[in-house]
Amino acid sequence: MDRKLRDVGEFAFIEELKARAFPGPGTVLGIGDDAAVIEPPGSGRLLLFTTDMLVEGTHFDLSTATPYRIGWKALACSLSDIAAMGGLPRAAVVSLGAPGDLVVDFCRELYRGMDDLARRFDCGIVGGDTVGSGAGLIVSVAMLGEVERERLALRSGARPGDGLWVTGRLGGSLSGRHLAFVPRILEARFLVERFPVKAMMDLSDGLGSDLFRMAAASGAGFRICGERIPVDRAAAGTADAETALGKALYDGEDFELLAAIDPSCDDDILRREFAARFECGITRIGTVMGKAHGVTVSMPGGERPIREGGFQHFGRNKK
Amino acid sequence: MDRKLRDVGEFAFIEELKARAFPGPGTVLGIGDDAAVIEPPGSGRLLLFTTDMLVEGTHFDLSTATPYRIGWKALACSLSDIAAMGGLPRAAVVSLGAPGDLVVDFCRELYRGMDDLARRFDCGIVGGDTVGSGAGLIVSVAMLGEVERERLALRSGARPGDGLWVTGRLGGSLSGRHLAFVPRILEARFLVERFPVKAMMDLSDGLGSDLFRMAAASGAGFRICGERIPVDRAAAGTADAETALGKALYDGEDFELLAAIDPSCDDDILRREFAARFECGITRIGTVMGKAHGVTVSMPGGERPIREGGFQHFGRNKK
Repeated sequence: MDRKLRDVGEFAFIEELKARAFPGPGTVLGIGDDAAVIEPPGSGRLLLFTTDMLVEGTHFDLSTATPYRIGWKALACSLSDIAAMGGLPRAAVVSLGAPGDLVVDFCRELYRGMDDLARRFDCGIVGGDTVGSGAGLIVSVAMLGEVERERLALRSGARPGDGLWVTGRLGGSLSGRHLAFVPRILEARFLVERFPVKAMMDLSDGLGSDLFRMAAASGAGFRICGERIPVDRAAAGTADAETALGKALYDGEDFELLAAIDPSCDDDILRREFAARFECGITRIGTVMGKAHGVTVSMPGGERPIREGGFQHFGRNKK
Repeated sequence: MDRKLRDVGEFAFIEELKARAFPGPGTVLGIGDDAAVIEPPGSGRLLLFTTDMLVEGTHFDLSTATPYRIGWKALACSLSDIAAMGGLPRAAVVSLGAPGDLVVDFCRELYRGMDDLARRFDCGIVGGDTVGSGAGLIVSVAMLGEVERERLALRSGARPGDGLWVTGRLGGSLSGRHLAFVPRILEARFLVERFPVKAMMDLSDGLGSDLFRMAAASGAGFRICGERIPVDRAAAGTADAETALGKALYDGEDFELLAAIDPSCDDDILRREFAARFECGITRIGTVMGKAHGVTVSMPGGERPIREGGFQHFGRNKK
């Protein structure tokens, strides 16, 4: 029943992955050779290339995360990066580091979580590496995407006067959403296809950290209206307004989009057209300012600088 | 002096990586956004996409491997995959999982090893992910390469009558070569540009394992001449001929090329032209047979099936 990876062996396990993986469109050759082969996209398109590593104990805990959700999240993080650039995913490669005594069905569930999400967004899983690990479970995904040159959304394009928007709701993700989120691929494409998006990124470390990333990349300041930040029920339900806002700013792992959109855009039209298509909704939370303004949040009590914070790896989170 | 990663923090460390990484040709946008942006290659070219994960305790041991060599090897493994397809590397993304108390200079050395190799083969390091790991050091590299359609070398193209060739010398890699090898990018390009290469792969698990991978992919059998297998000094010096041959077959981590080349090729010309350009040399070790032949090795005492073996992850190596 509970066969271990070491009972199956690497090669047999790879054969199984090969048989089940979603090949994706435009893949000349998927799993099984030294590298995958993908048709180059048509001219006028740019390639996007990203990677995310999930490590047991850091990104997930086996006592609370199902293997299906670990696989899902591993792929979802890279999809979210592709979305943040305004692109469409094309192909992914997956490296799995696992102890030899890991139950094989656990690994199958992990790949099933990835496959389900890959199919949903038409992203082939075209290769990977499977290695023994004495150091717990590690899943590393690298993803290729593509985007038309004129729709590419960088972090660096925000300019004073742009509106600042976020999709969905923020905070409390670690109570479960971080394992089951649906990356905002369709939402991002809708934005870059229909509206003058000047800058975009996904919120992975928390708004209170990622705002500073975009502001620095754009050489801009941001004025955020504290009351407009859409706080998720998971953060709002258990706390007073100030604490809930803190969670929305600093919990991280929201994987929503932060976008700067040109002032020529009509806010009501954007809000209405977006809401008509996507359940998550979109909220204008502020305005891009000059660099000297810094990053501030206005509250009923006045305007103040936002404390820079959020999740940082290597243990600087407790300040 | 010995600052820990946790003292520097993730963002500062990424800034440092960004400043030092080799951007590579054709990179529209490298490290620092959600994904890298690469110009699509000209028409007629295929994209190659591969990944390799190195895990402490499995692929290297901190008591014997310098950080420079760990970085070097991490990139070299993916370069070797691109070489094995007949391609040229284009761009890499690097995920680093590291404990917070790892010394920062250790990480710098690791990236220096990668950078040096990346520059040598004109492969941009265009992004990555840095994450905390309570589970030892993990380096995962994903790489994009490109190859002309007519020069693509798969594992599956070997046909009866083709000559079987290997570059360099095999065996004993774990005594040091596995950390310092130069991937056979130039050698592979020379082969696919000048000779009728029918199939190619890199020898990572050991000839005694990889021969079976290529035979299975090609639906062919192989007859190997045992005396022709080029045994490295690291394997030959310490053992009798039979033991040395066993090491050449089963040690693994050689990262040499195994190629099946059409019988129309003149062996002497190939050998001579290759040797004139590349120090490692190339050796014809056998001939592709029909599938029914299986994989055999001929020795002075007669011909016998090769025992399938070599490195397998998840602990099936001790049979």
